[in-house]
Amino acid sequence: MGGYFITFEGGEGSGKTTQIQMLLQHVESEFPTLDTVVSREPGGTASAESIRKLLVTGAADKWRAATEAMLMSASRHEHVVHVLRPALEAGKLVLCDRYNDSTRIYQGVVGGVPSADIEALNDLACEGLVPDLTVLLDMDVETGLNRAVERSGQGAPGDESRFESKGMDFHRDVRQAFLALAADHRERFVVIDAARDAVEVAKDVAGAVMPRLRTAGLV
Amino acid sequence: MGGYFITFEGGEGSGKTTQIQMLLQHVESEFPTLDTVVSREPGGTASAESIRKLLVTGAADKWRAATEAMLMSASRHEHVVHVLRPALEAGKLVLCDRYNDSTRIYQGVVGGVPSADIEALNDLACEGLVPDLTVLLDMDVETGLNRAVERSGQGAPGDESRFESKGMDFHRDVRQAFLALAADHRERFVVIDAARDAVEVAKDVAGAVMPRLRTAGLV
Repeated sequence: MGGYFITFEGGEGSGKTTQIQMLLQHVESEFPTLDTVVSREPGGTASAESIRKLLVTGAADKWRAATEAMLMSASRHEHVVHVLRPALEAGKLVLCDRYNDSTRIYQGVVGGVPSADIEALNDLACEGLVPDLTVLLDMDVETGLNRAVERSGQGAPGDESRFESKGMDFHRDVRQAFLALAADHRERFVVIDAARDAVEVAKDVAGAVMPRLRTAGLV
Repeated sequence: MGGYFITFEGGEGSGKTTQIQMLLQHVESEFPTLDTVVSREPGGTASAESIRKLLVTGAADKWRAATEAMLMSASRHEHVVHVLRPALEAGKLVLCDRYNDSTRIYQGVVGGVPSADIEALNDLACEGLVPDLTVLLDMDVETGLNRAVERSGQGAPGDESRFESKGMDFHRDVRQAFLALAADHRERFVVIDAARDAVEVAKDVAGAVMPRLRTAGLV
Protein backbone atom coordinates (compact mmCIF):
# COMPACT_ATOMS: atom_id res chain seq x y z
CA MET A 1 0.00 0.00 0.00
CA GLY A 2 3.03 2.30 -0.26
CA GLY A 3 4.98 3.53 2.73
CA TYR A 4 7.18 1.17 4.72
CA PHE A 5 6.21 -0.54 7.96
CA ILE A 6 8.93 -1.53 10.43
CA THR A 7 8.09 -3.17 13.76
CA PHE A 8 10.49 -3.58 16.67
CA GLU A 9 10.09 -6.65 18.85
CA GLY A 10 11.97 -8.08 21.81
CA GLY A 11 11.77 -8.68 25.53
CA GLU A 12 11.51 -6.19 28.36
CA GLY A 13 14.50 -3.81 28.47
CA SER A 14 15.86 -4.83 25.06
CA GLY A 15 16.06 -1.19 23.96
CA LYS A 16 13.18 -0.94 21.46
CA THR A 17 12.23 2.64 22.37
CA THR A 18 15.85 3.82 22.29
CA GLN A 19 16.60 2.11 18.98
CA ILE A 20 13.46 3.50 17.36
CA GLN A 21 14.51 7.03 18.37
CA MET A 22 18.07 6.51 17.12
CA LEU A 23 16.86 5.10 13.79
CA LEU A 24 14.43 7.99 13.46
CA GLN A 25 17.25 10.52 13.95
CA HIS A 26 19.41 8.70 11.42
CA VAL A 27 16.65 8.58 8.81
CA GLU A 28 15.66 12.20 9.38
CA SER A 29 19.24 13.43 9.05
CA GLU A 30 19.78 11.46 5.83
CA PHE A 31 16.33 12.11 4.29
CA PRO A 32 14.88 15.25 5.90
CA THR A 33 11.85 15.28 3.58
CA LEU A 34 10.70 11.73 4.33
CA ASP A 35 7.49 11.63 6.40
CA THR A 36 7.79 9.37 9.44
CA VAL A 37 5.41 8.11 12.11
CA VAL A 38 6.55 6.58 15.41
CA SER A 39 4.00 4.64 17.43
CA ARG A 40 3.65 1.80 19.91
CA GLU A 41 1.47 -1.08 21.00
CA PRO A 42 -0.55 -1.69 22.96
CA GLY A 43 -1.80 1.87 22.42
CA GLY A 44 -1.12 4.38 19.68
CA THR A 45 -4.49 6.17 19.75
CA ALA A 46 -6.13 7.90 22.72
CA SER A 47 -8.73 5.13 23.05
CA ALA A 48 -6.21 2.34 22.49
CA GLU A 49 -3.99 3.83 25.20
CA SER A 50 -6.90 3.38 27.64
CA ILE A 51 -6.78 -0.35 26.79
CA ARG A 52 -2.99 -0.29 27.23
CA LYS A 53 -3.45 0.98 30.77
CA LEU A 54 -5.61 -2.05 31.63
CA LEU A 55 -2.96 -4.36 30.17
CA VAL A 56 0.33 -3.05 31.51
CA THR A 57 -0.61 -2.10 35.08
CA GLY A 58 -1.65 -4.29 38.00
CA ALA A 59 -0.78 -7.78 39.17
CA ALA A 60 1.02 -10.24 36.87
CA ASP A 61 -1.95 -12.65 37.00
CA LYS A 62 -4.59 -9.93 36.56
CA TRP A 63 -5.78 -11.30 33.19
CA ARG A 64 -6.03 -14.73 31.62
CA ALA A 65 -3.81 -15.08 28.53
CA ALA A 66 -6.86 -15.31 26.23
CA THR A 67 -8.24 -12.09 27.76
CA GLU A 68 -4.89 -10.39 27.17
CA ALA A 69 -4.91 -11.57 23.55
CA MET A 70 -8.38 -10.09 23.00
CA LEU A 71 -7.48 -6.79 24.71
CA MET A 72 -4.22 -6.54 22.73
CA SER A 73 -6.12 -7.21 19.50
CA ALA A 74 -8.85 -4.69 20.34
CA SER A 75 -6.19 -2.03 20.90
CA ARG A 76 -4.40 -3.12 17.71
CA HIS A 77 -7.50 -2.83 15.54
CA GLU A 78 -7.98 0.82 16.55
CA HIS A 79 -4.28 1.45 15.90
CA VAL A 80 -4.32 -0.21 12.47
CA VAL A 81 -7.45 1.57 11.28
CA HIS A 82 -6.80 5.05 12.66
CA VAL A 83 -2.98 5.34 12.58
CA LEU A 84 -0.94 2.65 10.83
CA ARG A 85 -2.91 2.11 7.62
CA PRO A 86 -3.58 5.81 6.93
CA ALA A 87 0.13 6.59 7.46
CA LEU A 88 1.22 3.81 5.10
CA GLU A 89 -1.38 4.77 2.51
CA ALA A 90 0.11 8.26 2.65
CA GLY A 91 3.52 6.79 1.80
CA LYS A 92 5.11 7.33 5.22
CA LEU A 93 7.80 5.36 7.04
CA VAL A 94 6.18 3.84 10.14
CA LEU A 95 8.27 2.66 13.10
CA CYS A 96 6.23 0.75 15.67
CA ASP A 97 7.25 -0.49 19.11
CA ARG A 98 5.67 -4.00 19.15
CA TYR A 99 2.92 -5.35 16.87
CA ASN A 100 1.16 -8.68 16.43
CA ASP A 101 4.32 -10.80 16.80
CA SER A 102 4.22 -9.84 20.49
CA THR A 103 0.73 -11.33 20.78
CA ARG A 104 1.91 -14.48 18.98
CA ILE A 105 4.67 -14.88 21.56
CA TYR A 106 3.40 -13.50 24.88
CA GLN A 107 -0.20 -14.77 24.72
CA GLY A 108 0.23 -17.52 22.13
CA VAL A 109 3.42 -19.58 22.41
CA VAL A 110 4.20 -18.63 26.02
CA GLY A 111 0.69 -17.83 27.28
CA GLY A 112 -0.80 -21.02 25.85
CA VAL A 113 -3.59 -19.57 23.69
CA PRO A 114 -3.85 -21.87 20.62
CA SER A 115 -2.21 -20.40 17.54
CA ALA A 116 -5.45 -20.75 15.51
CA ASP A 117 -7.18 -18.43 18.01
CA ILE A 118 -4.25 -16.00 17.95
CA GLU A 119 -4.26 -15.88 14.14
CA ALA A 120 -8.06 -15.39 14.05
CA LEU A 121 -7.61 -12.40 16.36
CA ASN A 122 -4.72 -11.10 14.27
CA ASP A 123 -6.85 -11.35 11.11
CA LEU A 124 -9.70 -9.43 12.73
CA ALA A 125 -7.40 -6.81 14.26
CA CYS A 126 -4.93 -6.23 11.42
CA GLU A 127 -7.06 -6.68 8.31
CA GLY A 128 -4.05 -8.08 6.49
CA LEU A 129 -1.49 -5.46 7.49
CA VAL A 130 1.89 -7.24 7.79
CA PRO A 131 5.18 -5.44 8.61
CA ASP A 132 7.64 -5.00 5.75
CA LEU A 133 10.45 -5.59 8.24
CA THR A 134 10.58 -6.73 11.86
CA VAL A 135 13.68 -5.91 13.90
CA LEU A 136 14.10 -8.38 16.76
CA LEU A 137 16.33 -6.94 19.47
CA ASP A 138 17.72 -10.01 21.16
CA MET A 139 19.55 -10.10 24.47
CA ASP A 140 19.93 -12.24 27.54
CA VAL A 141 16.95 -12.01 29.84
CA GLU A 142 18.81 -11.00 33.00
CA THR A 143 20.40 -7.91 31.42
CA GLY A 144 17.10 -6.89 29.84
CA LEU A 145 15.10 -7.16 33.02
CA ASN A 146 17.74 -5.28 35.00
CA ARG A 147 17.50 -2.45 32.47
CA ALA A 148 13.69 -2.52 32.61
CA VAL A 149 13.63 -2.46 36.42
CA GLU A 150 16.10 0.45 36.38
CA ARG A 151 13.82 2.33 34.00
CA SER A 152 10.77 1.69 36.22
CA GLY A 153 12.76 2.86 39.25
CA GLN A 154 13.46 6.12 37.41
CA GLY A 155 9.77 6.92 37.50
CA ALA A 156 8.44 5.73 34.17
CA PRO A 157 4.95 7.22 33.63
CA GLY A 158 2.33 5.12 35.43
CA ASP A 159 3.53 1.80 36.78
CA GLU A 160 3.83 -0.16 33.55
CA SER A 161 5.64 -3.11 35.10
CA ARG A 162 2.96 -5.81 34.87
CA PHE A 163 4.73 -7.89 32.23
CA GLU A 164 8.16 -7.34 33.76
CA SER A 165 6.82 -8.92 36.96
CA LYS A 166 5.97 -12.24 35.31
CA GLY A 167 9.15 -14.05 36.40
CA MET A 168 12.38 -15.27 34.83
CA ASP A 169 11.02 -18.48 33.27
CA PHE A 170 8.34 -16.51 31.46
CA HIS A 171 10.89 -14.11 30.00
CA ARG A 172 13.29 -16.91 29.00
CA ASP A 173 10.42 -18.59 27.15
CA VAL A 174 9.58 -15.27 25.46
CA ARG A 175 13.16 -14.89 24.23
CA GLN A 176 13.34 -18.43 22.83
CA ALA A 177 9.93 -18.11 21.18
CA PHE A 178 10.90 -14.84 19.48
CA LEU A 179 14.09 -16.42 18.12
CA ALA A 180 12.11 -19.40 16.79
CA LEU A 181 9.53 -17.12 15.16
CA ALA A 182 12.30 -15.09 13.51
CA ALA A 183 13.90 -18.29 12.20
CA ASP A 184 10.55 -19.30 10.69
CA HIS A 185 10.11 -15.91 8.97
CA ARG A 186 13.56 -14.98 7.72
CA GLU A 187 12.04 -13.03 4.83
CA ARG A 188 10.66 -10.48 7.28
CA PHE A 189 12.83 -10.63 10.42
CA VAL A 190 16.29 -9.33 11.16
CA VAL A 191 17.75 -10.39 14.53
CA ILE A 192 20.17 -7.98 16.17
CA ASP A 193 22.32 -8.58 19.24
CA ALA A 194 21.02 -5.92 21.59
CA ALA A 195 23.34 -6.70 24.54
CA ARG A 196 25.84 -4.09 23.39
CA ASP A 197 26.31 -0.36 23.53
CA ALA A 198 23.24 1.39 22.06
CA VAL A 199 25.37 3.13 19.40
CA GLU A 200 26.71 -0.21 18.17
CA VAL A 201 23.20 -1.68 18.06
CA ALA A 202 21.92 1.40 16.22
CA LYS A 203 24.59 0.95 13.53
CA ASP A 204 23.36 -2.60 12.88
CA VAL A 205 19.73 -1.47 12.84
CA ALA A 206 20.48 1.27 10.31
CA GLY A 207 22.59 -1.20 8.32
CA ALA A 208 19.58 -3.50 8.04
CA VAL A 209 16.98 -0.81 7.42
CA MET A 210 18.55 1.66 4.99
CA PRO A 211 19.21 -0.72 2.07
CA ARG A 212 15.62 -2.01 2.39
CA LEU A 213 14.20 1.53 2.27
CA ARG A 214 16.18 2.07 -0.95
CA THR A 215 15.02 -1.22 -2.46
CA ALA A 216 11.43 -0.33 -1.56
CA GLY A 217 11.89 2.99 -3.35
CA LEU A 218 11.04 4.97 -0.24
CA VAL A 219 14.28 6.96 -0.28
CA MET B 1 -22.31 -28.92 34.48
CA GLY B 2 -25.11 -28.66 37.04
CA GLY B 3 -26.70 -25.37 38.07
CA TYR B 4 -28.92 -23.45 35.68
CA PHE B 5 -27.85 -20.50 33.54
CA ILE B 6 -30.44 -17.91 32.50
CA THR B 7 -29.48 -14.88 30.43
CA PHE B 8 -31.65 -11.81 29.88
CA GLU B 9 -31.37 -10.03 26.57
CA GLY B 10 -33.12 -7.08 24.96
CA GLY B 11 -32.68 -3.47 23.91
CA GLU B 12 -31.94 -0.43 26.04
CA GLY B 13 -34.65 0.20 28.65
CA SER B 14 -36.38 -3.15 28.12
CA GLY B 15 -36.34 -3.82 31.88
CA LYS B 16 -33.67 -6.51 32.16
CA THR B 17 -32.31 -5.35 35.52
CA THR B 18 -35.79 -4.95 37.00
CA GLN B 19 -36.98 -8.34 35.77
CA ILE B 20 -33.87 -10.09 37.06
CA GLN B 21 -34.49 -8.62 40.51
CA MET B 22 -38.18 -9.57 40.46
CA LEU B 23 -37.39 -13.12 39.34
CA LEU B 24 -34.73 -13.37 42.04
CA GLN B 25 -37.25 -12.35 44.73
CA HIS B 26 -39.76 -14.83 43.40
CA VAL B 27 -37.26 -17.69 43.34
CA GLU B 28 -35.88 -16.83 46.77
CA SER B 29 -39.34 -16.70 48.34
CA GLU B 30 -40.33 -20.05 46.79
CA PHE B 31 -36.99 -21.82 47.33
CA PRO B 32 -35.11 -20.03 50.12
CA THR B 33 -32.31 -22.61 50.19
CA LEU B 34 -31.43 -22.34 46.47
CA ASP B 35 -28.09 -20.61 45.87
CA THR B 36 -28.34 -17.81 43.31
CA VAL B 37 -25.89 -15.53 41.55
CA VAL B 38 -26.89 -12.33 39.76
CA SER B 39 -24.37 -10.78 37.38
CA ARG B 40 -24.10 -8.67 34.26
CA GLU B 41 -22.12 -8.09 31.09
CA PRO B 42 -20.01 -6.42 30.09
CA GLY B 43 -18.48 -6.69 33.56
CA GLY B 44 -19.16 -9.04 36.43
CA THR B 45 -15.62 -9.10 37.91
CA ALA B 46 -13.58 -6.14 39.15
CA SER B 47 -11.24 -6.35 36.14
CA ALA B 48 -14.05 -6.97 33.65
CA GLU B 49 -15.90 -3.92 35.02
CA SER B 50 -12.84 -1.84 34.04
CA ILE B 51 -13.37 -3.06 30.46
CA ARG B 52 -17.10 -2.27 30.77
CA LYS B 53 -16.23 1.32 31.58
CA LEU B 54 -14.30 1.66 28.31
CA LEU B 55 -17.26 0.20 26.40
CA VAL B 56 -20.29 1.99 27.82
CA THR B 57 -18.96 5.52 28.27
CA GLY B 58 -17.91 8.08 25.68
CA ALA B 59 -18.99 8.96 22.15
CA ALA B 60 -21.19 6.58 20.15
CA ASP B 61 -18.47 6.18 17.50
CA LYS B 62 -15.63 5.78 20.01
CA TRP B 63 -14.88 2.19 18.95
CA ARG B 64 -15.06 0.23 15.72
CA ALA B 65 -17.56 -2.65 15.92
CA ALA B 66 -14.76 -5.24 15.70
CA THR B 67 -12.96 -3.52 18.59
CA GLU B 68 -16.17 -3.60 20.63
CA ALA B 69 -16.56 -7.30 19.89
CA MET B 70 -13.03 -8.02 21.12
CA LEU B 71 -13.46 -5.89 24.26
CA MET B 72 -16.84 -7.51 25.02
CA SER B 73 -15.29 -10.96 24.57
CA ALA B 74 -12.28 -10.12 26.74
CA SER B 75 -14.62 -9.03 29.52
CA ARG B 76 -16.77 -12.13 28.97
CA HIS B 77 -13.84 -14.53 29.24
CA GLU B 78 -12.94 -13.19 32.70
CA HIS B 79 -16.60 -13.42 33.71
CA VAL B 80 -17.01 -17.00 32.46
CA VAL B 81 -13.83 -18.27 34.10
CA HIS B 82 -14.04 -16.47 37.43
CA VAL B 83 -17.81 -16.16 38.05
CA LEU B 84 -20.22 -17.99 35.76
CA ARG B 85 -18.59 -21.40 35.42
CA PRO B 86 -17.63 -21.74 39.11
CA ALA B 87 -21.20 -20.79 40.13
CA LEU B 88 -22.74 -23.34 37.75
CA GLU B 89 -20.28 -26.03 38.78
CA ALA B 90 -21.41 -25.39 42.36
CA GLY B 91 -25.00 -26.06 41.25
CA LYS B 92 -26.25 -22.46 41.55
CA LEU B 93 -28.95 -20.63 39.62
CA VAL B 94 -27.22 -17.88 37.62
CA LEU B 95 -29.16 -14.88 36.29
CA CYS B 96 -27.11 -12.74 33.93
CA ASP B 97 -27.96 -9.36 32.38
CA ARG B 98 -26.72 -9.85 28.77
CA TYR B 99 -24.31 -12.52 27.46
CA ASN B 100 -22.92 -13.48 24.08
CA ASP B 101 -26.22 -13.04 22.19
CA SER B 102 -25.71 -9.30 22.72
CA THR B 103 -22.37 -9.49 20.91
CA ARG B 104 -23.98 -11.52 18.11
CA ILE B 105 -26.55 -8.74 17.66
CA TYR B 106 -24.88 -5.43 18.52
CA GLN B 107 -21.44 -6.05 16.98
CA GLY B 108 -22.36 -8.88 14.59
CA VAL B 109 -25.67 -8.52 12.79
CA VAL B 110 -26.05 -4.78 13.37
CA GLY B 111 -22.38 -3.77 13.73
CA GLY B 112 -21.34 -5.66 10.61
CA VAL B 113 -18.62 -7.92 12.05
CA PRO B 114 -18.84 -11.23 10.11
CA SER B 115 -20.57 -13.97 12.08
CA ALA B 116 -17.57 -16.31 11.69
CA ASP B 117 -15.43 -13.75 13.54
CA ILE B 118 -18.11 -13.28 16.22
CA GLU B 119 -18.40 -17.03 16.76
CA ALA B 120 -14.60 -17.42 16.95
CA LEU B 121 -14.56 -14.76 19.68
CA ASN B 122 -17.48 -16.43 21.45
CA ASP B 123 -15.67 -19.77 21.40
CA LEU B 124 -12.52 -18.25 22.85
CA ALA B 125 -14.43 -16.22 25.46
CA CYS B 126 -17.07 -18.75 26.58
CA GLU B 127 -15.23 -22.07 26.30
CA GLY B 128 -18.52 -23.73 25.37
CA LEU B 129 -20.71 -22.22 28.08
CA VAL B 130 -24.21 -21.80 26.57
CA PRO B 131 -27.24 -20.49 28.52
CA ASP B 132 -29.88 -23.03 29.50
CA LEU B 133 -32.51 -20.39 28.87
CA THR B 134 -32.45 -16.91 27.34
CA VAL B 135 -35.28 -14.50 28.18
CA LEU B 136 -35.67 -11.91 25.42
CA LEU B 137 -37.52 -8.85 26.73
CA ASP B 138 -39.04 -7.39 23.60
CA MET B 139 -40.59 -3.96 23.30
CA ASP B 140 -40.90 -1.10 20.85
CA VAL B 141 -37.73 0.91 20.56
CA GLU B 142 -39.24 4.33 21.36
CA THR B 143 -40.63 3.25 24.72
CA GLY B 144 -37.41 1.49 25.65
CA LEU B 145 -35.17 4.42 24.82
CA ASN B 146 -37.45 6.82 26.70
CA ARG B 147 -37.15 4.61 29.76
CA ALA B 148 -33.37 4.39 29.35
CA VAL B 149 -33.00 8.15 28.97
CA GLU B 150 -35.18 8.67 32.06
CA ARG B 151 -32.93 6.30 33.99
CA SER B 152 -29.78 8.15 32.83
CA GLY B 153 -31.39 11.44 33.82
CA GLN B 154 -31.90 10.06 37.30
CA GLY B 155 -28.15 9.88 37.79
CA ALA B 156 -27.22 6.33 36.88
CA PRO B 157 -23.66 5.64 38.11
CA GLY B 158 -21.14 6.96 35.59
CA ASP B 159 -22.54 8.04 32.26
CA GLU B 160 -23.31 4.64 30.75
CA SER B 161 -25.25 6.04 27.81
CA ARG B 162 -22.88 5.25 24.93
CA PHE B 163 -25.05 2.59 23.32
CA GLU B 164 -28.27 4.51 23.98
CA SER B 165 -26.83 7.37 21.94
CA LYS B 166 -26.44 5.27 18.77
CA GLY B 167 -29.66 6.45 17.11
CA MET B 168 -33.13 5.07 16.37
CA ASP B 169 -32.21 3.07 13.25
CA PHE B 170 -29.52 1.21 15.18
CA HIS B 171 -31.94 0.27 17.94
CA ARG B 172 -34.66 -0.79 15.50
CA ASP B 173 -32.13 -3.07 13.80
CA VAL B 174 -31.13 -4.48 17.21
CA ARG B 175 -34.75 -5.32 18.04
CA GLN B 176 -35.39 -7.07 14.73
CA ALA B 177 -32.10 -8.98 14.94
CA PHE B 178 -32.90 -10.22 18.46
CA LEU B 179 -36.32 -11.44 17.32
CA ALA B 180 -34.76 -13.25 14.36
CA LEU B 181 -32.11 -14.87 16.58
CA ALA B 182 -34.81 -16.02 19.01
CA ALA B 183 -36.81 -17.51 16.14
CA ASP B 184 -33.71 -19.43 15.03
CA HIS B 185 -33.09 -20.81 18.55
CA ARG B 186 -36.54 -21.61 19.90
CA GLU B 187 -35.07 -24.41 22.03
CA ARG B 188 -33.26 -21.83 24.16
CA PHE B 189 -35.17 -18.54 23.83
CA VAL B 190 -38.42 -17.34 25.33
CA VAL B 191 -39.67 -14.00 24.00
CA ILE B 192 -41.72 -11.88 26.41
CA ASP B 193 -43.66 -8.71 25.63
CA ALA B 194 -41.91 -6.21 27.90
CA ALA B 195 -44.01 -3.16 26.97
CA ARG B 196 -46.36 -3.77 29.90
CA ASP B 197 -46.45 -3.17 33.62
CA ALA B 198 -43.36 -4.75 35.24
CA VAL B 199 -45.54 -7.00 37.46
CA GLU B 200 -47.29 -8.45 34.41
CA VAL B 201 -43.97 -9.04 32.68
CA ALA B 202 -42.55 -10.66 35.82
CA LYS B 203 -45.48 -13.12 35.92
CA ASP B 204 -44.64 -14.25 32.38
CA VAL B 205 -40.93 -14.51 33.20
CA ALA B 206 -41.63 -16.65 36.27
CA GLY B 207 -44.11 -18.69 34.23
CA ALA B 208 -41.38 -19.50 31.73
CA VAL B 209 -38.60 -20.07 34.25
CA MET B 210 -40.13 -22.06 37.12
CA PRO B 211 -41.23 -25.14 35.15
CA ARG B 212 -37.79 -25.31 33.54
CA LEU B 213 -36.05 -25.18 36.92
CA ARG B 214 -38.23 -28.12 38.00
CA THR B 215 -37.51 -30.07 34.82
CA ALA B 216 -33.81 -29.41 35.30
CA GLY B 217 -34.09 -30.79 38.82
CA LEU B 218 -32.79 -27.57 40.35
CA VAL B 219 -35.84 -27.11 42.61
